[in-house]
Amino acid sequence: MHKQQNILIIGAGLCGSLLALRLGQRGYNVTVMEMRPDLRKVDISAGRSINLAFSDRGIKAIKLVGLEELVKPLCIPMNGRMLHDLEGNTMLAPYSGREHEYINSISRGQLNALLLDEAEKHENVKIHFNQKCKSVDFENTTALFKDYITSAEFVEDADAIFATDGAGSAMRQSYYLGKKFLFSFSQNYLTHGYKELSILPAENGGYKTYKNALHIWGREAFMLIALPNLDGSFTVTLFLSFDEGEYNFNNLTTKERVLEFFSKNFKDALELMPNLVDDFFENPTSPLGTVKCSPWHYKGNTLLMGDAAHAIVPFYGQGMNASFEDVTEFDKVLDQGHPDWETIFEVYEKSRKKDTDAIADLAIDNFHEMKGHVNHANFREKRSLEMAFEKTFPNDYSSKYSLVTFNENIGYREAMLRGRAQDKAILNMLADGDISSVNDMTNETLKNTLEKVKTATEAILEDDQIAGLKK
Amino acid sequence: MHKQQNILIIGAGLCGSLLALRLGQRGYNVTVMEMRPDLRKVDISAGRSINLAFSDRGIKAIKLVGLEELVKPLCIPMNGRMLHDLEGNTMLAPYSGREHEYINSISRGQLNALLLDEAEKHENVKIHFNQKCKSVDFENTTALFKDYITSAEFVEDADAIFATDGAGSAMRQSYYLGKKFLFSFSQNYLTHGYKELSILPAENGGYKTYKNALHIWGREAFMLIALPNLDGSFTVTLFLSFDEGEYNFNNLTTKERVLEFFSKNFKDALELMPNLVDDFFENPTSPLGTVKCSPWHYKGNTLLMGDAAHAIVPFYGQGMNASFEDVTEFDKVLDQGHPDWETIFEVYEKSRKKDTDAIADLAIDNFHEMKGHVNHANFREKRSLEMAFEKTFPNDYSSKYSLVTFNENIGYREAMLRGRAQDKAILNMLADGDISSVNDMTNETLKNTLEKVKTATEAILEDDQIAGLKK
Repeated sequence: MHKQQNILIIGAGLCGSLLALRLGQRGYNVTVMEMRPDLRKVDISAGRSINLAFSDRGIKAIKLVGLEELVKPLCIPMNGRMLHDLEGNTMLAPYSGREHEYINSISRGQLNALLLDEAEKHENVKIHFNQKCKSVDFENTTALFKDYITSAEFVEDADAIFATDGAGSAMRQSYYLGKKFLFSFSQNYLTHGYKELSILPAENGGYKTYKNALHIWGREAFMLIALPNLDGSFTVTLFLSFDEGEYNFNNLTTKERVLEFFSKNFKDALELMPNLVDDFFENPTSPLGTVKCSPWHYKGNTLLMGDAAHAIVPFYGQGMNASFEDVTEFDKVLDQGHPDWETIFEVYEKSRKKDTDAIADLAIDNFHEMKGHVNHANFREKRSLEMAFEKTFPNDYSSKYSLVTFNENIGYREAMLRGRAQDKAILNMLADGDISSVNDMTNETLKNTLEKVKTATEAILEDDQIAGLKK
Repeated sequence: MHKQQNILIIGAGLCGSLLALRLGQRGYNVTVMEMRPDLRKVDISAGRSINLAFSDRGIKAIKLVGLEELVKPLCIPMNGRMLHDLEGNTMLAPYSGREHEYINSISRGQLNALLLDEAEKHENVKIHFNQKCKSVDFENTTALFKDYITSAEFVEDADAIFATDGAGSAMRQSYYLGKKFLFSFSQNYLTHGYKELSILPAENGGYKTYKNALHIWGREAFMLIALPNLDGSFTVTLFLSFDEGEYNFNNLTTKERVLEFFSKNFKDALELMPNLVDDFFENPTSPLGTVKCSPWHYKGNTLLMGDAAHAIVPFYGQGMNASFEDVTEFDKVLDQGHPDWETIFEVYEKSRKKDTDAIADLAIDNFHEMKGHVNHANFREKRSLEMAFEKTFPNDYSSKYSLVTFNENIGYREAMLRGRAQDKAILNMLADGDISSVNDMTNETLKNTLEKVKTATEAILEDDQIAGLKK
């Protein structure tokens, strides 16, 4: 019944262009309106190269639209975290004990361009650029746009409007300001902001440091990370408080102070970044926010998806993956054959929201883990044990990180509950001296330890359930 | 240094009038602007009588301003929850095993009038009514008002502005819309709304049901409560989903359906409410929302207090108490002699926000407890055990409810963490059969059980701390 329906998608970023492609494949008439210029036509060679972590949940969506083989060449596998200490010593901490489990670094721009190309191959998909959505009339299923080229304002109508216009969504703001229904909404900022920097390619075009890892310089109060790009460069991100501590974004105002801060804290990184000071003062400082809201939809008229519905902080590398998973999950609901958009939107939100809430919380947990916990003795011991479990008994254990990142067929919420319980079980057994060091373990001891961890995990989950009096 | 400073308070509700009184007592020049007419001059005898739960944290603030003796005659002690089952059987579940621990029902209007009278006794305090705040310019410390009588708009300036203008605060909206700083903000609505009803006084002017209790008709999916008024009436509140379940606010649209719903679910209450149908269709249905935000202050210019900073749902009876406690805590910070408003506001928010966040979460927990858990066997057994602990060893145990309600010298957050751990300990011991029924216990067994609960509680708190890797 929905074929030939006119769908309006606001925003042609990663989520919007994937959604346009999928709905195009399903036969809908799709119009996409994007605020920015067409990124395929703008010269970005001089600009910054932004990359993202791309993993199994995102890959599942890419498989859904049949683009796996085209996306693969854009990916750089990262097998683990390369931890850099104050002295410049490094240690590779793998993401999983199973070799086939790794994440990828991918260029946001290249991936977006591919999705736009593929979407436009469908005659029933039209993408318009430089069209800024100013507000959405969700009662009449129309949206007001401003054409950035002509400055003209105009109204578009549709049978259903999907807003994939990101963390600052105009449609979400219309929900909030409209006060036509009870709209639960939150925006929460961390004390820290971020700034993108770069490690340029080596003279020979190669990589100046180890290519296949996500590099982390965790310093408790702040942190630096680096992800590789195909051209030999790394995109580096500094996460730092706006106004707390000896060094912060507000007081790093001179070349001398920036260099002092980096040479004290990231000596080995500084050596790779002769361009640091220019990057630092040219690039903006941006906030880190989490957005949650509900309902995502208004009747059968409008639906928020991707960052517009659930913006998260980047510390689990799941932002794009979660948005892509939205499309997979929405597609699954379309397959169920519900009679109208209102039912489809309701069913989708009911099954999906608990999972996007969970990844939002997990991403904040990981902020603290990446800054500091990776350096704690018991945390490291826990990770060693989990690597040994995954390597030796690959079918019997997945760490929280694996559950979230490599198990695309369980939801984020289930991954969070089980993963947190496992962490709690292991950390408490380590604190109580109930587990010896993994280095001294025979396979039999390791097996026994795994059983103890599983038993303790189940007990924690059960105790929590009883305390919550859930039925 | 702050004497003779000009303070502008927006809102003369409970928090604003108490704050005006306290700042007046401290010698500041205080101007209060209130949107509504002066409630002391409006005839409210025909209107609804709204009452509130008033307990130790609120009493502490009233003592601070020296009004304890004037407030006492307005209070009706409620010693416990009177639970009404489907058949109309009742059971009194005390709030504490210690006799001197009880909560009070108090008229919002009478208490507010008293605070306004006392504030106005200070020459340096001026209160203006019918003055609606439209927005606040927090950078210039001015506020825009509309006079509801003359329709004139005008700007007021001050050395510092305090917004105590409730859950829909105009100043908080100015923070949000101004986008001049990173403003973390959430509004979260429950699926349920509420409607106020009433049990009128008996013919002889007495009470139609037991006076000294908070009556609860908990029915899992919805609930009715009643609190006594001085005139022999009870204010009754129905909490019900807007659109879920067989009966909800959206489908209770006829006299017949309302009567059917009440006779099926609240038979004994219906017998006391011949006026039910009129009340039901005359009174509005209102939403139940939680508001959190941060920062509360902008530099040393402006500060949000009370519901404007932290609106909570009513299920812990702590809304007014939390707002009054704001004034106590703010007064404590004033005593510390900080050099400027910015420092005062920062110190206040830093110490206070964790506690108002906690009571917001506790209030939502209690929504579920009051609707349903009070009827669960293990929940009732837990409460019996806690009553026995508090009665027999009054210095050795306080339940979560007691910690929150009767222990005004510990913060809400500490009460929440300890209270939740105790609940978890007891519920799990009951589920595991580690505790026999309290009725069969000798004093020695009771003492041993208390020690077991304390040990288990400490273990839970420690396990959580280790899992959080807190230092």
